[in-house]
Amino acid sequence: MTFQLTDELLENITSLINLQNDRELTTLFEEYHFADIAEIIDDLTLDQATYLIKLLDSQRTSDILMELEEEVRERILDNLSAKEIAEEVEEMDSDDAADVISELPSNRVENVISQIEDEDRAKDIVELLSYEENSAGGLMAKELVRVRETWTVAGCVRKMRSQAKNVTRVHSVYVVDKHDKLIGRLSLKDLLTSDTATKISEIYIPKVDFVNVHTEAEEVARIMQKYDLEAIPVVDDLNRLVGRVTIDDILDFIRDEAEKDYQMAAGLSQDVEADDSILRHTRARLPWLVLGLLGGLGAAMIMGSFEDILENYTILFFFTPLIAAMAGNVGVQSSAIIVQGLANDDLKESLVNRLLKEMLLALLNGVILAILLLGFTYMWKGDFLTALAISLSLIIVIVVAGLVGTFVPLFLHKRDIDPAIATGPFITTSNDIFGILIYFYIAKMVLGI
Amino acid sequence: MTFQLTDELLENITSLINLQNDRELTTLFEEYHFADIAEIIDDLTLDQATYLIKLLDSQRTSDILMELEEEVRERILDNLSAKEIAEEVEEMDSDDAADVISELPSNRVENVISQIEDEDRAKDIVELLSYEENSAGGLMAKELVRVRETWTVAGCVRKMRSQAKNVTRVHSVYVVDKHDKLIGRLSLKDLLTSDTATKISEIYIPKVDFVNVHTEAEEVARIMQKYDLEAIPVVDDLNRLVGRVTIDDILDFIRDEAEKDYQMAAGLSQDVEADDSILRHTRARLPWLVLGLLGGLGAAMIMGSFEDILENYTILFFFTPLIAAMAGNVGVQSSAIIVQGLANDDLKESLVNRLLKEMLLALLNGVILAILLLGFTYMWKGDFLTALAISLSLIIVIVVAGLVGTFVPLFLHKRDIDPAIATGPFITTSNDIFGILIYFYIAKMVLGI
Repeated sequence: MTFQLTDELLENITSLINLQNDRELTTLFEEYHFADIAEIIDDLTLDQATYLIKLLDSQRTSDILMELEEEVRERILDNLSAKEIAEEVEEMDSDDAADVISELPSNRVENVISQIEDEDRAKDIVELLSYEENSAGGLMAKELVRVRETWTVAGCVRKMRSQAKNVTRVHSVYVVDKHDKLIGRLSLKDLLTSDTATKISEIYIPKVDFVNVHTEAEEVARIMQKYDLEAIPVVDDLNRLVGRVTIDDILDFIRDEAEKDYQMAAGLSQDVEADDSILRHTRARLPWLVLGLLGGLGAAMIMGSFEDILENYTILFFFTPLIAAMAGNVGVQSSAIIVQGLANDDLKESLVNRLLKEMLLALLNGVILAILLLGFTYMWKGDFLTALAISLSLIIVIVVAGLVGTFVPLFLHKRDIDPAIATGPFITTSNDIFGILIYFYIAKMVLGI
Repeated sequence: MTFQLTDELLENITSLINLQNDRELTTLFEEYHFADIAEIIDDLTLDQATYLIKLLDSQRTSDILMELEEEVRERILDNLSAKEIAEEVEEMDSDDAADVISELPSNRVENVISQIEDEDRAKDIVELLSYEENSAGGLMAKELVRVRETWTVAGCVRKMRSQAKNVTRVHSVYVVDKHDKLIGRLSLKDLLTSDTATKISEIYIPKVDFVNVHTEAEEVARIMQKYDLEAIPVVDDLNRLVGRVTIDDILDFIRDEAEKDYQMAAGLSQDVEADDSILRHTRARLPWLVLGLLGGLGAAMIMGSFEDILENYTILFFFTPLIAAMAGNVGVQSSAIIVQGLANDDLKESLVNRLLKEMLLALLNGVILAILLLGFTYMWKGDFLTALAISLSLIIVIVVAGLVGTFVPLFLHKRDIDPAIATGPFITTSNDIFGILIYFYIAKMVLGI
């Protein structure tokens, strides 16, 4: 059943487009799922892609557009008129429609909205555009099935039939009072198993999870995951039902967040994919590399300032990459634990306890590593005191690195800055410099110079 | 509406347990969602937790158990008899039941299964336990709503009512032929909007996405996300409908995978959380640190072997932490892009093209960084040739690091090893060593020594 995008298929499509063989193209694409067509279009030239989008009917292309890579979609929309975009948007779920419109250049937004024929739809989109992107309002769709508590099951099913036409998936049926205030929910299962004359007020479940339009997306994701919800209703400040967030939007949100954290940890400063241009890659990679370079220059200058001990204690200098690497690794490990804990909302201990624990942990790891280092260095050079100095410094460096790695993300989080940036080259670089500085000072102290 | 676990609440519950005030405890917990009760139990002592689990009725505790942290659940189950576990398991969805049983010590598994009263249920669990953990069979549940193509809508609704009692959420209704082979699906919406005398064969949708029991979990996740499915039916090798995978299981799978990749990138060798014990943290962190230590020792030995040029070219040694850091950073950036591309299945270019692109990219970044380094070093020491030697070496080091970072994860993936391990200290460490070695060779070459 799996769709495979082969070179032959792509060539076939390209030649059909070049021949402008619309009949055969339409027939060919009828067989495919819109997600598969999107995969094909991602691989076509802009002209070919635009040609196809204009050819296929808007009920299908609206779905296809949503599956395209954002860059490709933006370029195709650039090639469509405001009227054509409005037609696509009318076929989309309201949340997708708002997303697409928010991606448009700001001078086109108004124009496209004014071309939308269905006024209710236009109103919905304008409402959705007014919410913060990362809030329940920004994630929600207006399409949902709502019933009044005063209806009967039979009346309810009748009304639902017409509402359900606009809703891709009916997860739950929400029950409202006459002021449109959310008062409960009705599971489809209950509806299926109740007598048709029953009043909704008798069978609805008054206990319903909901969020406010201003609730942050992260909190919405946390609630939906914790309570295993596939959809959650969204209310305004007057408790009126205004929309619902579905699990697929949350899934996308969680994936994006995880990807962002991962890229941050890997030292990529912006969202970048393997197939992006070299220029885009450079923009994503260079900033952290320049920071790393500055860190390295700092380390070099610190070493330069200890040049006077170079002749007698050459070996100290040989271990600077080791010290820098260990400080960096320990720092990243500690901060990753904190970033993950913050994301999962399970950091319950106080800051002091956490730092204390991290210190003990670093001490334990540090002592084990220092013993290994001591053994190796003594065997290599036979100078016990120097080996001891290096090893003791390593312990202190590891403890400091662990504390910095724990403290920095917590501090950033307190200041409302994404703590994930602390797991990238930022902490590695600062720990490199700190580490080497501490290392030379401790070593000098132990060696009595 | 949000539940807040306060210290007062916890104290109140603890004292009620100590007083063995079962009546008040039962009343108190009636109000709470099972996910909230799980949050409370995660914070109790083992004895208190076990007391509560034995007190509350198994219909609720089965849900609570599934929400607990795995460690807590395992310890509580250790305290329950086989009979008590079997009672819990009977209340769970079959996939959860199989998961819980697979976590038991192997000598208890058979005992617990033999205590399950419902034989069909026991058979289902044994079947589920037979599949690979990371396959569709390992993820799926047996509970689903299936109808025969020969039934009418009215008959269908009647049959569905009894089936639906066992199914937490009805996503889709699957249509089978008389051999139980999957032939299509029926959306609830279609069922709601069809006449009761209509035959299922007239209204079902013959196009249905499905997976085989042996399909890998990653592929299931890819398909469900691509086609925006909230549930997917699973068939055996004879195409018979045997189960279904729901989106919440996929969500958990995706989160776990993302967390694993993240931890790998951060140098944590096993799943570890902020609140785990120091010993567990040490076990997770020490392996990569030891690897880092070995890398550092390697770097030290390489520097030692270049000791003869130390007196005249001291400055070369000052830049070794910089070289190691840049090689590490570039390597991690490149490999993270590949790991991410592999996970999202969007690496379409050939290996040669990819390496070529990475080389150009590394060359571009390298030249920019080398110019910065050249300027700085020349200003610092005033020796242009040495500055040039260091900068040229940096370019080569960056290119090699980029190529290694690209090649290694692709190679691991080909060998069916998780490429994510390449983003951790593994690539940093090897790039440290390679980097410093290359650096000294190139520098010597440029300086003519």
